[in-house]
Amino acid sequence: MMAFDLAEHPHRRYNALTGEWVLVSPHRAKRPWQGQQEEVEKETRPEYDPTCYLCPGNERAGGQKNPSYTATFVFHNDFGALQESTPAGSFAKGGLLQAESERGICKVICFSPRHDLTLPDMEVADIRKVVDLWQREYEELGQLDFINYVQIFENKGIIMGCSNPHPHGQIWAQSSIPVEPVKELVQQQNYFTENNRSLLSDYLAIELEEKKRIVVENEHFAVLVPFWAVWPFETMIISKRHFGSLSQITEAEKDAFADSIKKLTVIYDKVFNISFPYSAGIHQTPTDGQEHPGWHFHMHFYPPLLRSATIKKFMVGYEMLGNPQRDITPETAADRLRSLV
Amino acid sequence: MMAFDLAEHPHRRYNALTGEWVLVSPHRAKRPWQGQQEEVEKETRPEYDPTCYLCPGNERAGGQKNPSYTATFVFHNDFGALQESTPAGSFAKGGLLQAESERGICKVICFSPRHDLTLPDMEVADIRKVVDLWQREYEELGQLDFINYVQIFENKGIIMGCSNPHPHGQIWAQSSIPVEPVKELVQQQNYFTENNRSLLSDYLAIELEEKKRIVVENEHFAVLVPFWAVWPFETMIISKRHFGSLSQITEAEKDAFADSIKKLTVIYDKVFNISFPYSAGIHQTPTDGQEHPGWHFHMHFYPPLLRSATIKKFMVGYEMLGNPQRDITPETAADRLRSLV
Ligand SMILES: O=P(O)(O)O[C@H]1O[C@H](CO)[C@@H](O)[C@H](O)[C@H]1O
Ligand SMILES: O=P(O)(O)O[C@H]1O[C@H](CO)[C@@H](O)[C@H](O)[C@H]1O
Repeated sequence: MMAFDLAEHPHRRYNALTGEWVLVSPHRAKRPWQGQQEEVEKETRPEYDPTCYLCPGNERAGGQKNPSYTATFVFHNDFGALQESTPAGSFAKGGLLQAESERGICKVICFSPRHDLTLPDMEVADIRKVVDLWQREYEELGQLDFINYVQIFENKGIIMGCSNPHPHGQIWAQSSIPVEPVKELVQQQNYFTENNRSLLSDYLAIELEEKKRIVVENEHFAVLVPFWAVWPFETMIISKRHFGSLSQITEAEKDAFADSIKKLTVIYDKVFNISFPYSAGIHQTPTDGQEHPGWHFHMHFYPPLLRSATIKKFMVGYEMLGNPQRDITPETAADRLRSLV
Repeated sequence: MMAFDLAEHPHRRYNALTGEWVLVSPHRAKRPWQGQQEEVEKETRPEYDPTCYLCPGNERAGGQKNPSYTATFVFHNDFGALQESTPAGSFAKGGLLQAESERGICKVICFSPRHDLTLPDMEVADIRKVVDLWQREYEELGQLDFINYVQIFENKGIIMGCSNPHPHGQIWAQSSIPVEPVKELVQQQNYFTENNRSLLSDYLAIELEEKKRIVVENEHFAVLVPFWAVWPFETMIISKRHFGSLSQITEAEKDAFADSIKKLTVIYDKVFNISFPYSAGIHQTPTDGQEHPGWHFHMHFYPPLLRSATIKKFMVGYEMLGNPQRDITPETAADRLRSLV
């Protein structure tokens, strides 16, 4: 009888951070592909695009004019999914139909005045300015009494629904804590109560010892492919020190965080020799006024590509109805990313 | 002060079947779109395609030859994500790294010998043959002692990662119960224990009374946009009688189920005047030998399109890191679908 081998045999892996499972099918990378191919964005962009609503000095859809900003720039999303003015209220019928009004604020953050850059093209010092702005926004929004959670994220590439290539991200801040952070909150809190250490500290210690899934690290952060990664080249940036949010980060850690983002995104662009698409975002302590001592600061990167610049992983039928499934193992993905450092 | 209105204001809705939430932003359908456009598949297909590995009499990748089938045809997936031969085993490190081997069987089901048809093009009597095959497979696979859950599904359209337009679906049958069915199991079981009626019976009773989200119905099934729908035109087919699986369905119900699938998919094709892409699948009782008296047979349809044949809903940044978000309300979507009956 063969011995069970993570590198060869179909298996499920447990996501300790959410409590959910992913199906891993290592042998499946061999199947032929005849399906949809994505288009590659190849055009070179100008430093300034007069038709771009995010470039300095240009007009936005709402009619406002952007300032001639020279570093970062933040503004309220003219088409935000959340609004500050939403009246309180709820709806319920028989316990089975339940809705609650949701107040919030949606903002857009330009990472750079340059239309032609992306994070990996930027200097670490300029990425650091983005980190500073994220910190300011997290603190300012988090202080509002109707904001209990702040989600900072970036959709990069048209394949990720990003409608403007100007380097930018978003912030959606809201009254309730969304589903994914709630899962992480429960798992982290339970772990902390039992062990008096953060789940991600203990997890990172294992990873730093095993080294198999580490992509790159610096003094304060490690970049790794999580053991339970869903997307082919999914990664996490985890702080080596246990702290919960950008309110508790040191100056040196901010530099190191910017450095990690730079290193990771530069590697990503080498995987298929294109500007690598992804959705990424920071998971930090809810701003609901409660202590969340178990929460450990981290950032997720979810890139959709699987085999090439034009072939993505489809999270469809089985994945939507069952659970996520991946082909190449996290260890193989980490090897590949590490080889591009 | 304005009154809170589900049709106007951002809100969260509770999914009673999974216990999770979705963010609804009714006002947001107005925002302009400059992002990725999907390609429309417009080619007319031949009834028989000599290069199609699913057409009768043709050769598959593995070298086997398809029979000259005249109705449905099922075979083992040559590149299945699950394998029967997987050795038992597990892996654990510190409770934080956990993996378990997973045995299973992946099959492909051709719905028709005709290369040029899709479910909405087929006669109800021919769809009924597909239902018969689903029943047979559910029962045969479910009887195997290492199969505790059978997921029947279809990915339709290249946008859903479907690599061959020949009408077909899949079955992934496996040892463990995947994440989504587990959520539904817990919610349905809790509800049943408390109320001694199935969650979906009580939910359907509300919907049939309100009529707002009902798309179409027949004697034994209703098609509706669930109150908690995530995808713009997401629907469910729910049986009017409470039963758990295709093992308990009557002959009349099988006809009515086929009729519901036909009616729904015909409507879908009218939404944007194209062959409407979706992933769909049946959620039925796990085959783990336990009683699951709360489980209520249903089928989910998850179509990706939002505004037109070429503009889909992107479940990206906020959705991946926070929770799903939708623009048009389920009530608006149901109105639209109902108007196409
Ligand atoms: O099995 P297929 O059709 O080749 O593959 C498709 O469906 C599978 C099951 O939903 C997914 O895992 C794949 O990502 C998708 O491309
Ligand atoms: O806000 P954008 O960039 O227009 O829109 C994009 O990101 C949002 C947040 O992840 C998603 O809800 C949209 O589906 C996506 O197209």
